[in-house]
Amino acid sequence: MDTQEPQTEPSLVPPTDSVEITVSDLRRLLLADSPGELESLMLTLGHGDMSRLLGQLEEHERILLWERLSPTHAAHYIEEIPFSQAAEELSNLSTAVAADILDELPSDEQADFLGEMDETAREAVLQEMEDPDVEGVRALTGYDDDVAGGLMRREYLFFHRDLTVAQLVQDMRSRADELARFDVQYAYVTDEKGVLVGVLRLRDLLMTPAETRIDSIMFDSLQTVSDHATLQDLELLFDRVSFVAVPAVDEAGRIVGVVRRIDVEEALGERSEGEFLKSQGIVGGDELRSMPFWGRAGRRLAWLSVNVLLNIVAASVIAARQGTLEAVIALAVFLPIISDMSGCTGNQAVAVSLRELALGVIRPKDAWWVLKQELGVGLVNGLSLGLLLGVVGWLWQSNPWFGLVVGGAMALNSLIAVCIGGTVPVLLKRFKADPALASGPILTTITDVCGFLIVLSLASWSLSKLV
Amino acid sequence: MDTQEPQTEPSLVPPTDSVEITVSDLRRLLLADSPGELESLMLTLGHGDMSRLLGQLEEHERILLWERLSPTHAAHYIEEIPFSQAAEELSNLSTAVAADILDELPSDEQADFLGEMDETAREAVLQEMEDPDVEGVRALTGYDDDVAGGLMRREYLFFHRDLTVAQLVQDMRSRADELARFDVQYAYVTDEKGVLVGVLRLRDLLMTPAETRIDSIMFDSLQTVSDHATLQDLELLFDRVSFVAVPAVDEAGRIVGVVRRIDVEEALGERSEGEFLKSQGIVGGDELRSMPFWGRAGRRLAWLSVNVLLNIVAASVIAARQGTLEAVIALAVFLPIISDMSGCTGNQAVAVSLRELALGVIRPKDAWWVLKQELGVGLVNGLSLGLLLGVVGWLWQSNPWFGLVVGGAMALNSLIAVCIGGTVPVLLKRFKADPALASGPILTTITDVCGFLIVLSLASWSLSKLV
Repeated sequence: MDTQEPQTEPSLVPPTDSVEITVSDLRRLLLADSPGELESLMLTLGHGDMSRLLGQLEEHERILLWERLSPTHAAHYIEEIPFSQAAEELSNLSTAVAADILDELPSDEQADFLGEMDETAREAVLQEMEDPDVEGVRALTGYDDDVAGGLMRREYLFFHRDLTVAQLVQDMRSRADELARFDVQYAYVTDEKGVLVGVLRLRDLLMTPAETRIDSIMFDSLQTVSDHATLQDLELLFDRVSFVAVPAVDEAGRIVGVVRRIDVEEALGERSEGEFLKSQGIVGGDELRSMPFWGRAGRRLAWLSVNVLLNIVAASVIAARQGTLEAVIALAVFLPIISDMSGCTGNQAVAVSLRELALGVIRPKDAWWVLKQELGVGLVNGLSLGLLLGVVGWLWQSNPWFGLVVGGAMALNSLIAVCIGGTVPVLLKRFKADPALASGPILTTITDVCGFLIVLSLASWSLSKLV
Repeated sequence: MDTQEPQTEPSLVPPTDSVEITVSDLRRLLLADSPGELESLMLTLGHGDMSRLLGQLEEHERILLWERLSPTHAAHYIEEIPFSQAAEELSNLSTAVAADILDELPSDEQADFLGEMDETAREAVLQEMEDPDVEGVRALTGYDDDVAGGLMRREYLFFHRDLTVAQLVQDMRSRADELARFDVQYAYVTDEKGVLVGVLRLRDLLMTPAETRIDSIMFDSLQTVSDHATLQDLELLFDRVSFVAVPAVDEAGRIVGVVRRIDVEEALGERSEGEFLKSQGIVGGDELRSMPFWGRAGRRLAWLSVNVLLNIVAASVIAARQGTLEAVIALAVFLPIISDMSGCTGNQAVAVSLRELALGVIRPKDAWWVLKQELGVGLVNGLSLGLLLGVVGWLWQSNPWFGLVVGGAMALNSLIAVCIGGTVPVLLKRFKADPALASGPILTTITDVCGFLIVLSLASWSLSKLV
């Protein structure tokens, strides 16, 4: 058995040394065609190294690298690198090489990668795979990625309820090789129709006489989950119970797979990482610099183009009040400050709302509660920032009225910014829009318009004191 | 055994119904003093509900609530709500109530909460706890939160190597109640000095004759981790192997606890969530609106104050070139646009760098590689945005030179922004600063200064064509 084989025997893994592996080391070994040396080099790679090195190799070199690695070894790296990059790599490989690698992956990942391929490629790879659970993989690829069916594995133990403990142990022993790949703590018990009727803890088998029927020692009030349960349902479920895995059943109550807590945790982590990227304007929530250039530039530009148009709309407020600005040109120095600081103040509130929405601490209808919570913070921080900016303005222009205009505008606009920043993500969620992607642009457009209007209006009302 | 008991028998959990629970329902039941009704209400709470409801209750009501709940039930919610909120709640409770709740938690969480208390409070609570592994908890609280010692549990099975399978099974059976709380797949084998010599998979015991000595069936080339291994080391380790848990050992090779994959995943998730909040200006990376008001306002203000000062510095560039602005007042409309768009463009690159650093795809010394990757995106997107803004400027002022000034400045400053946004997080990491917290302010200050300088310099060079 290979030392890279997951979920099998504990085995010695070479210690991490901090040897620096460069892309030229890798190139040299690829050209030298010495698979042994290549594999030893790869064993010293650190977290993320493979992804980085792939980003620096040419496409033909990457293909060569995957071909040189043993399938088990290659599968290990396919699991380690980010999913989008792995899917890209697999799509470049020949059908035979891709099939060999996929053979080494657990069923949920096979399905994820096959699901990314078009139908022709998928059928070709399935043809080449050694012993594919074709029906199972087809079933898994039919589910969305973030429902129980998309997250579950098909490697689980199940036994007919008529068996005895001795028969069960006998069966496990005879399939030891196959089961080595399973991550097993429970065995599921089904009736003749495949309907799930109970669950066994394997460690309880240790303490039970061999002739006992398994359905007399199983737990029959068991926690299941629908194969269409959403990620949010699963999060709630694993919050309430502490099992490491829960069986997924179809409408007829037949077991179709097992959803593990770890897979739910990973999916939640990926979701929150995607939300962070989206909130910073990476449409799609996924970018690595190893991805194709035009896709990266285009997705960033899509969001930027919307933003520049919104910015032009907001700035047209300044154009409309150009007369005031001409009279008090020093205000032009403060317009970008007020615009930027309102953005900062509001984005703090956006971030807290996005996090509270993700945690379920606030719900889409809690906009009013959030607003009340932000009002206080907005007052305190708005007055502080306003005071600071007002004093700077006063001293610079030696005119207290000037300080009052810019400080007052800063204070008022900060208050507006936290209120909008806190509530906009909640309202977007309520109307089924994506709060991570849209909150920022909406916030800054509104606060820019308000900020420019407030500064220039205050200034035009007190024009006689300013000039 | 309680149905809320973690990691024990699979048990029926009541279906989630979408009944809306309001804070007034909860208040009514608290005053009515009917624990049964209260517990049934609590069972229908969804993900995040408890955290939200606590945020809406007064302090004396929250204390009453925790006292009314059974310790097992209370412990369940202490585990579910965010850690900082849970620590705050426990600190409000009487020593006896806190001790009862802590008794129901696994050792790693006991240590986390006790570690948050001051020494007097900690000793008082330890006195009240039923059967605290005082020495163990003291040892655990001595570790940082994000090293193996801080993440590990002390609930693990270990046996002396002289035992036979029959003796081991006999021992497990006699301790069944205690072991019900363990999350057990492996048992560790030690010598007379407590040094770890091997590991047993419990399921293998199923297939072994009773009189076999356990050290003849154990795996003796086993993966361990130092109790001082960092979160990054653990991430790398669990990337390379697929075990659900790895034993942590001290310098003498004695087992001191077990680090589970799930706890490492959760710690990584919390870290990335904290980084998101920090990148948006939430110092400390943790805010919920249920936290004390002045702390929330103060931490936000700390970051805002630094920002407003940086903004004033950047805007002083405009003050220095006020003459140009007076001559071409229409430029004042474009200064905030260029400032804001450069921030957006740069922040996209910051977000991708933060993610790639977290994934290990780029390392602190890869600033040069990142710069090369960003240059292309900056050229394409800078030219696109510059063209757009330039055409708007040209049409508005009916002057191609005006369009050239604002469009050219936008293009050049976007290029600068992506280069700075991509590399600043990498450089900060290299110099051991916190890239999540500092990248944004550094980026926007530099791009503001450059943006204002470029617009106003281009304008002053071409002044004759503009007026």
